[in-house]
Formats: sequence, C-alpha cells, structure tokens
Amino acid sequence: MNTFGRFFRFTTFGESHGRALGVVVDGCPPGIEFSEADMIPLLERRRPGLSPLSTPRSESDNPEILSGIFEGKTTGMPVAMIVRNRDARSGDYESGKELFRPGHADYTYREKYGIRDYRGGGRSSGRETVSRVMAGALAMKMLSITGISFKSRILSVHGISDPGLFEDEILSAKSAGDSVGGVAEVTVKGCPAGVGDPVFGRLDAALSAAMMSVGAVKGVEIGDGFSSAEVFGSENNDSMASDEYGNVKFLSNHSGGILGGISTGEDIVIRIAVKPTPSISSEQQTVDIHGNNRLISTGGRHDPCIVPRITVVAEAMAAVVIADSYLSMRAYAPFE
Amino acid sequence: MNTFGRFFRFTTFGESHGRALGVVVDGCPPGIEFSEADMIPLLERRRPGLSPLSTPRSESDNPEILSGIFEGKTTGMPVAMIVRNRDARSGDYESGKELFRPGHADYTYREKYGIRDYRGGGRSSGRETVSRVMAGALAMKMLSITGISFKSRILSVHGISDPGLFEDEILSAKSAGDSVGGVAEVTVKGCPAGVGDPVFGRLDAALSAAMMSVGAVKGVEIGDGFSSAEVFGSENNDSMASDEYGNVKFLSNHSGGILGGISTGEDIVIRIAVKPTPSISSEQQTVDIHGNNRLISTGGRHDPCIVPRITVVAEAMAAVVIADSYLSMRAYAPFE
Amino acid sequence: MNTFGRFFRFTTFGESHGRALGVVVDGCPPGIEFSEADMIPLLERRRPGLSPLSTPRSESDNPEILSGIFEGKTTGMPVAMIVRNRDARSGDYESGKELFRPGHADYTYREKYGIRDYRGGGRSSGRETVSRVMAGALAMKMLSITGISFKSRILSVHGISDPGLFEDEILSAKSAGDSVGGVAEVTVKGCPAGVGDPVFGRLDAALSAAMMSVGAVKGVEIGDGFSSAEVFGSENNDSMASDEYGNVKFLSNHSGGILGGISTGEDIVIRIAVKPTPSISSEQQTVDIHGNNRLISTGGRHDPCIVPRITVVAEAMAAVVIADSYLSMRAYAPFE
Amino acid sequence: MNTFGRFFRFTTFGESHGRALGVVVDGCPPGIEFSEADMIPLLERRRPGLSPLSTPRSESDNPEILSGIFEGKTTGMPVAMIVRNRDARSGDYESGKELFRPGHADYTYREKYGIRDYRGGGRSSGRETVSRVMAGALAMKMLSITGISFKSRILSVHGISDPGLFEDEILSAKSAGDSVGGVAEVTVKGCPAGVGDPVFGRLDAALSAAMMSVGAVKGVEIGDGFSSAEVFGSENNDSMASDEYGNVKFLSNHSGGILGGISTGEDIVIRIAVKPTPSISSEQQTVDIHGNNRLISTGGRHDPCIVPRITVVAEAMAAVVIADSYLSMRAYAPFE
Repeated sequence: MNTFGRFFRFTTFGESHGRALGVVVDGCPPGIEFSEADMIPLLERRRPGLSPLSTPRSESDNPEILSGIFEGKTTGMPVAMIVRNRDARSGDYESGKELFRPGHADYTYREKYGIRDYRGGGRSSGRETVSRVMAGALAMKMLSITGISFKSRILSVHGISDPGLFEDEILSAKSAGDSVGGVAEVTVKGCPAGVGDPVFGRLDAALSAAMMSVGAVKGVEIGDGFSSAEVFGSENNDSMASDEYGNVKFLSNHSGGILGGISTGEDIVIRIAVKPTPSISSEQQTVDIHGNNRLISTGGRHDPCIVPRITVVAEAMAAVVIADSYLSMRAYAPFE
Repeated sequence: MNTFGRFFRFTTFGESHGRALGVVVDGCPPGIEFSEADMIPLLERRRPGLSPLSTPRSESDNPEILSGIFEGKTTGMPVAMIVRNRDARSGDYESGKELFRPGHADYTYREKYGIRDYRGGGRSSGRETVSRVMAGALAMKMLSITGISFKSRILSVHGISDPGLFEDEILSAKSAGDSVGGVAEVTVKGCPAGVGDPVFGRLDAALSAAMMSVGAVKGVEIGDGFSSAEVFGSENNDSMASDEYGNVKFLSNHSGGILGGISTGEDIVIRIAVKPTPSISSEQQTVDIHGNNRLISTGGRHDPCIVPRITVVAEAMAAVVIADSYLSMRAYAPFE
Repeated sequence: MNTFGRFFRFTTFGESHGRALGVVVDGCPPGIEFSEADMIPLLERRRPGLSPLSTPRSESDNPEILSGIFEGKTTGMPVAMIVRNRDARSGDYESGKELFRPGHADYTYREKYGIRDYRGGGRSSGRETVSRVMAGALAMKMLSITGISFKSRILSVHGISDPGLFEDEILSAKSAGDSVGGVAEVTVKGCPAGVGDPVFGRLDAALSAAMMSVGAVKGVEIGDGFSSAEVFGSENNDSMASDEYGNVKFLSNHSGGILGGISTGEDIVIRIAVKPTPSISSEQQTVDIHGNNRLISTGGRHDPCIVPRITVVAEAMAAVVIADSYLSMRAYAPFE
Repeated sequence: MNTFGRFFRFTTFGESHGRALGVVVDGCPPGIEFSEADMIPLLERRRPGLSPLSTPRSESDNPEILSGIFEGKTTGMPVAMIVRNRDARSGDYESGKELFRPGHADYTYREKYGIRDYRGGGRSSGRETVSRVMAGALAMKMLSITGISFKSRILSVHGISDPGLFEDEILSAKSAGDSVGGVAEVTVKGCPAGVGDPVFGRLDAALSAAMMSVGAVKGVEIGDGFSSAEVFGSENNDSMASDEYGNVKFLSNHSGGILGGISTGEDIVIRIAVKPTPSISSEQQTVDIHGNNRLISTGGRHDPCIVPRITVVAEAMAAVVIADSYLSMRAYAPFE
C-alpha cells in the first residue's frame, strides 16, 4: 500500500513528525549517475517556507542516500533515500490531539486503525510527498538519458486563470483565515510511442492513480479530459498524417498523448484538481474522539494554497509512472 | 498488466474477435453464493444491440463459470469465467487491417508490439469490459453481504444535462455520421468508514486507476472534483457533528466519501468523463501501416455514444475496488 | 496465490473434477509462434493412463487457446489456455466426502475454508499441474529462441538408484496396496550468465518456490545441495579459469549454475524429493468431518508413484522461472 | 526483487560497506508494541564477532526505527528500520577489487550489472541479512500475540551430528585455512491449522523461497524431506485420530506440519543445507575482470562456518512467512 510501480518500484515511509521520511527505489537499472545533488532542485521547489504564500515551517530537507549508489552510479540494487525531520514541534499538536480536523484524514485513520499519529497528520501529512519527490528525481535522471523530460504549470487558482492574479488571490484568502485550491498541469515531453501497457497497465490509468494518490487531489484529466465529453467524435479524434519521409504525425493532441493506454509520441498532458488546504484559521464545527461536538481552528503554519508545491509532486509522480512503463517496454519488446 | 487488485484480484483476457473473453478472480473468500445467473443482469445492461442507440452487433454473452464454485458457493479457489464470442464477423475488418483508425489504439499497439490483432480492435476493444463486468458481479455479490451497493447514472451527454434530451442528442449525432460522449456518475452506498489504505493504496487512487483503465474515459473526479478547486477551504471542508447517541455525521459530502484515501462512511461519489466513440462514418484523415496518407470511415456496427454502456462497467470497476479494499481492511484490522 | 512470476506471470485455475483447468499467461512478449500443438508433447508426458505404472484414469487433455494468439503468434496480450475435464466420475468420491484422507489436503482445506470440493481433491489435486504444464510449454517456446532448453530424469525411486529397477519397485509397491516416492532432477542448459535477481528475486529462491509449490514435493536442492553441507569450502568452491580467448569457465559446478542467486552460465541443476503417493489401498486410520475415528482405503485410480509424471511438471516450472528472470534481465539491463 | 511477502511485506536495502542496511515493513497491523529493544536479542545472535568461531569484524548493529511506531505501538504505517555500518574498512577490499572470488557472487553480479560494489560483496554480502532479522523481529512480535513461536538448532556441521564436536570441527577447518557448512532446522510452534494458501501461496513454497533466498543455503526440506522419498506411502502418511472431545490429532508429523501447502496445526519443521563459507585462506584458482588467470586467497575476517549465525536468519525468515500467511488467513476468512 506504500509501494508504487511494478518495474520502477518504490516504497515510501515516514510521518510528518517522525524521525525521517524516506523511500526505497527497487528497480532502477545500473549505471545511472545519481547523487544527493540531483534531488536538491526538486526538493527545494517542493519545500515550504520559501515564499509568503506557503507555510513558515522551514525544513531544510537534506537528502541522504543510504544504499544503491557506488562510485557515483546506480548499481541495480535498491536506492534508499531519507530526509530527517528537524523542525518538528510536535508540542504544537498536543492541544488538538483529540479533535478531528475537517477535511483531513484524522477521522478516517482513527476509525480504521484505532490509533493515529496526531502530530501534523502523521503519515497522511503532505510532508509524505518528500519521499515521492526523491523517487521522482531518480526517475527523471534515468529518463533524461532517453530524452524524456517533465514540466508543470498552474492553470488556475480559486477559479482564476490569470497567473498575475494568483498571489493576490492566495494572500486574500489567507488574510480572511481561509484557503484556496486550483488546477495544475504536467506535460511529459519526448516520450516515444509505445510506452504503457494495455488494460490495467494503461499509462493513463497509472498516471491517474499516481496523481490521485497525492493528498488534496480530487480530479484528474488526460488530454482534453472532461471537455472531450462535450464535443463530437469528429472533433475529438486526432487525425494522422505522414510527411514526405514517411514519419507519422498526429494533427492534433486531444488525446493528451495516450491512445489505448499507450503513448502516441505526442506530449503527454495531465491535469489535476487540487482542493483548498483543509487547515484554516476560521472556526469550523467538528467532533472529538469522545463524540463531543466542538469548534476547531486549524490555522497556523499551513499553506493557504498548496497548488504551487503540489505541481512539483505531480511532476515527480508523472516521472515514476513513465519510468515504470519505460522499463516494462524493455522487458516485453518483441524478441529479435 | 491485465491484473487488477491486490486482495480481490482478477486477471482478464480475450480479444474482440478471439475465441472467448474471460476473467480469473483470485481472492474471493469462500462461502459466497454465486452462479452464472448473478452475472446476467449486469451483462445485459452492458451488452450492445439492445436499443437503437447502441451497436447492432448482438452477442448473447452467455457466461460460463469454469472453476471455483462448488455446490453453488465460492470455495476460496480462483473463479474463472468466460464468455464465448459468437457474432465475430472478422471478415468485416479485412479491408481496414492496414489503416490506423483515429482515436483508436491501432497505431500505439502496432508501434509497441509490431503485431496487432486488427479484428475490431482486438484486445483494445470495448468488448474487453465483459471480463470486468463478470468480476464486478462477483464483487457486488460479496459486498452485498456487508450491505454495500452500487448505482450509476448519466449526468450529461454531449454537454447536455437534461436526461430527456439524451436520446435525441445521440440519434442526431448518429445520423450526422458522428458520435458523442458524456459524463457518468457512480455512487457507492453503505460503505462503512475505514475502507481504503493510505498513500498508494488510497481508495480514490484505486478508483481513479480503475475508471481510467476503461477505454474512452478521459477524466475522473471524486466528490466535488474539479469544482472543489474553485471554492474556499471553509466551503469545501465537510464539518462533522455528533448526534445525541454520539454517532458522528458529516454535515456535507464535498469529499465524496473519502478522506486521506479512506472511506468516511458517507456515500462514495465518482464521476467519469467519456469521450465520443472514435468510430464514426464521416471521413477522417489517417495513415496506413506503410506510411501512406489515407482517408478512413469507421462507421458500421458501432455505438454513437457508449456512455450508457460504460456506466455499467464503471459500477463493476467501483465494486472490485471496494471489494479489494474491504479485504485489505480485514487483513490489517488491529489485533484483538 | 494462484499467480506465479512477476514478468512472465501466470495465473492458474480449476479443480480436479470441475469443468476445466486453465491458465492465463500475462507477460509473454509478442511475436512468438505458439499453438496448441506446442503443448501436446509436454501434456502427453504428464498425463496419466499411459503405462501400467500410472493411474488408469484417461483424460485426453486437449488444450484450447482462448486468447493472445493471432495469426499463429503471441501478440503480447494474455494467453489463456484451458483443458476441459471429461473423465470426471465425481460419483466415485461421494462415499469418501466426509473422510479426511491421510497425506492429502482434505483436513487443511476444510479447516481453512469451511467448505471444500471433495471430488478428487478439488483444487489440491495433482490434476492442477495441467495448467502449469501449459504455461511451461509457452515459456519453453519463448526460451528456445534464446537457446535455453530443459531436461529431466529420475535419480531414484524408493531409495533405489538403478533405473532398471524402477518399474519393478513401483509395481511391487502397487501390488502391496502401497506407494513409493523418489528423487528427480531438472537441468537447464544454455542459460547465459546474468539471469536472476539479487536477494528475494534470486533464481535459486524462485526455483525452490516453484518446485515446492508442486504437490508431493518435500525437498529441493540446487547443485550439490545437502551434500555441500558435508565438504570443505575448498572442495565446494568452483574455481574459474580463462582460456586462450579470454573466455571464463568454471572448472566444476558444485553451485548448480547459480551464485548469489544469478546464473553463472553453467548448467542449472535442481533436484526434488517426491513423497510417496498418499492414496493407497491399505487401510489407514483417520477421522471424518464429524470428528469420528474411521478407517480409510484410498486406493483406486491413483498412481503408485508420481515421480515420472512430476518430472514433467518440474521441467515446466523451471521453464517459467527462467522465463521470468530472463524478462527481468531485459528490463534492468544497463542503459546504453 | 528486494521485496518479500504479499501481506506482511517488506523491502530490504543496503550493502556490506555502504552507509546503512535497512528494511521497510509495509503491512504490519496497528497496535503491536514494538521498539528497538525487541530487535536486539535477534541481532545479537546474528552478529559476528561474538565467538572464536565467527568473524572478528565487530559491528555494533544498533537498530533505529525511523517510522511507523507511535507511542510505542505500530500504527499500521510502514515501519522503516536501519542499522548504520561503522566498521567498514573498505580499504581492505581494494586489492581484490578486480578478482572474482570463487563461490561468491562477484562474477555473476559483474556479468549482470556491468558494475559492482566490490567492498565485501556489496549487496550480496551476508551482512544483508541484518535487514531480514529486523523484519523477522517485528513478525515474531506480532505472532507472539497469537501464540506462535520459533526455535532453531544446528543438526550437523561438516557431516557431524554430535553438537559436542561442532566447535572442534570448525576450529580445525579454520586452522587449515578452510571452511565448513552444515544443516540447521527451524521449528514453528503453536501455528494453528489453516495458515497458508493453495498452489503458489503454499506455506512450504513460501518457506522454501524464504530459506533459499538466504546466501549459502543450497537445499531445503519440509518435514521428512528427502527421506520421505525413500519410504512407503503407508509409512509416510500421517494418520489422524480424534480424542474423546472430538479434537483431531495427527499421530505422526512426517509432513512437517503442512499438507496441501496449509498448516495442519502440528509443528512446522524446515531444514536447510548451508554450504561452507566460500571465503577461505587457502589459495584458489580464479580469473580477474580482464580475463587473466590468477590465484586468490580470501581469508581474513570471515566466519569459517556460518551455520550458527544463519539459523537466526532462518528463524527470522520463517517468521515473516508465517506472518504473511497469517494475515492472508484473516483477509480470506469465510464471511460471517
């Protein structure tokens, strides 16, 4: 349940205020240059505390590789990576330990497990995504050899599509003791045709699972997504043409680069809907673990909008999915 | 790649015009009454040829259980089920065997495998979903013991939300040699809190993968989905309250019954975007396997809108996901 | 639990007296020529009724391929294969349905599942191995392209190592209303160095699981096996030498072709211990499902020695293990 | 490939002379008391340097739990555990970095990966088993709640069965610059009937894979193992009887507590053959990575017999297998 992927396979662990967060990537081929430095840019983009828009909690997020690298390269053995938690003021959470925060996993974890690590959400915290970003960095490094790259952008915040207004919108929500969500897009460039597997190994299915497994994501689209449900087939189909050298091209990319679950060679386009941060200063109605009605304010060191940070995680997740399917393609290539 | 689930786990096989389609469910507990009759209603709802809106191809879809049932009950052994293909006029496909149909998986399969079963899409055909429906029927039967049930409805067709207009919209597209898509919704009722696992075993992630693995699905939402990205946190959070007996209730269900990947006890709500059927009579530009530019018309025995039939498949997929997580919950229940 | 392998992965189903036995192989690369005829020789060697030494029950074991083959070749899609049961006189088993046969799985299945298919052992019958043989035939076909082949032989029967005495030994046990076991050996020839994965994907671990998963197998050895525990390291180590062309050779093969779980390039040698058939005519003490002490005689249509038939199954299992690791080797080959 | 188990599932990582060895256990139910102290006894029994019989290298093996424990109990989240390497004089290995040590995985790793961590065997070192022992300690703690326990003993060393002679035999080999192997036995006590799954989830198959995945193990037996191949069915079958209260008992345990892959309720008995330590002081013939013939002496800080230490690892592996099947039993228990 904490493992993702079949070929480029990784297992994450760690809680928001535990000793460390980490990931073990089992299934990276040998010979790929990789070091802690390769993770820093992605971790920096993900980490909080960098702008007035995000939480003031400042983790330094120094990754340490524990295994699987020898003389600067992957060996084919599992690559274990951890980030120690430092700024873990768990005392902050004592007061709320008996309250179920609306929009969080407090209630469901308690119902399921009987026990829960109430410090900052424990395992259900967004901090868990540090592990994914480390795995994603390795996937990206591997895929860079093949010419595949990833980029992301924010499409809208709180329904507003003008990037110049995003910061104002977020600060305005924050000052009102509230929060906002938004929509982000990840694009995979340079992916050749033939990546992905049929039926339950479909690239779009794997990407959807990957994205929806990120906390706060409530919707996923591939290509035109929900818009494709509103047009004619003649508009939605991507026609094909051959150039003078016999190279096949798609004349449009409504499919988002995936047909039948397998990449077409065009850009792969994924969009995600991110809900507003559930932690807000405004008072909300809730119950405690004894069944009493209570009021709660969960403001504090929380991002009023996690869309900017989540786009990095979404890129990382896209990378591990593509890496996984890429290795599958090697395994099942036609003989001879 | 043709296996879904970890606990209630099934593997599907079969091509559109091969000998049979089938599924092996490995992971159904013993003692559940199940027979071919339990599959008929779902298979009938899924199958083509029942209305002017769907394809005239009429498969009888008579399921046969090959194993795993003894004296009318599951034994805990794998339940293999098949449906033989009968109305398989593969001759119909000879003429198009060298053409890549736009919007279909023809090109990607060919690129990936070098070989493809061109008869009606082979494995990438919607006919593959017969296997899923059989697995779903068993999952539903198992879950019915626990009081969990499934229902679905069409929310819109070609952007139109009035059910009274759906048929007209579809027939109008058909007569224009075109096709339309739509949006459908599946609701899971009676699911207790605590179903689903954290991180990559999240119920919403599994449901997304399940839905997106169905051909023609291009978007998935849980609860308010993309709409949740446009509201404030104070609007999107579901407050909780306790009644006089200490029973906890959510005062709204924007989350769609899932928090932190685990069920809350409220209805689980999933929506899918279905693209227009790619097979249309209108001519489209394409290429053949030799790289020549060609025109193609892929009309014929195809549904102008597969939303009605796909809702059944979506219900079935929701059922297998819930069944899977339900068994996981039993495995990992607290000791004593 | 009914699935084996990660890359060349298959799921078996079916009971001794159910409608059919079958297997779905998910993970065979495209382009491999395969038909029912490729399974016949192996199925014939496995099947009962061919000699006075084996059970008179005569199944014809006509395999049918339901999917995954198009124009005589694998397509990369799941290959489903079944054999219908014909000579299923389940009436024969009515009398013993409440008795637990010593040495059989009757008691354990009943304890575990509460329900059991008592007809000929149901799922726990040796007849289940028909599915494995079909999967093995496909694995062998795939591996034959790479020059890998399989052979097996009986090393001893009832402790006797002279092949000329095997038949007498078996007939003598049979006439005494008893049964005997033996030891068999499988050799994999032509396997290059580098097949197998470290730690839990070790080739020897996978081969052991494969062999021990066959009913009646109680011991497995790789290379010198238990004998290696009785010699000095200097005797057991296989020295290496390089010939004039720089080709590395092992000067002995005590390791059985596997070091660190990975093939060395030498013959891979596996030995299995097969217990005597538990079904015997002599009376034995047992209990019934109501807890009453009873006497039982389980003679009838049963092999007095299954070693000859089980060697075929062992070959098939060796083939699926090698096929699995071979595909893994392709997936994780060094980049560039 | 570095993951074991389906329900009680763990992934190991780390090299002999890397930064740390570790394991992530994903699939331990919540509520089980567990701390570093629970691992110490097992780690102490496994670790080298404690007697004249084992290697003088003295790792302190201080385990650290990084996640999954809150307020002294498991939370249901992944339990990550590491042991840092301290006494890692990798300089010792510089001289031999181009030589393939006979009996080791040096050649096969090099052939497979092109790159290998030559420091003390890297991932193929016996030091890897530290991770297994940590996972085993958690499995044992969980199973202790159900009354299941594990014990092990050495049956023979270098073919000698008198425990009073083991030490002499080992020291004698050591002084001759040589090494010896032996046979060990693990017994599982208190395991109820019904643990284990049919076909490929068989308890005996899983135990065999678990044991054979330990470096130096070359053979596995369940119950009477190879001896059962030499007796009559009437001798090998375990008769059953019911006592005055209707409790079923087996009158012997030749099967080693497993029938049809499922536990009978009797002691589960597993035996393993351990080859002599391949590292010996005596000179052996080998080749280097350039294909030159060379002589090698691999003595030094190595156990002349690893049987005593490997029994601990075998206990740990037995524990994880039983834990895995135990959780499976909970998942698939009959409904109601």
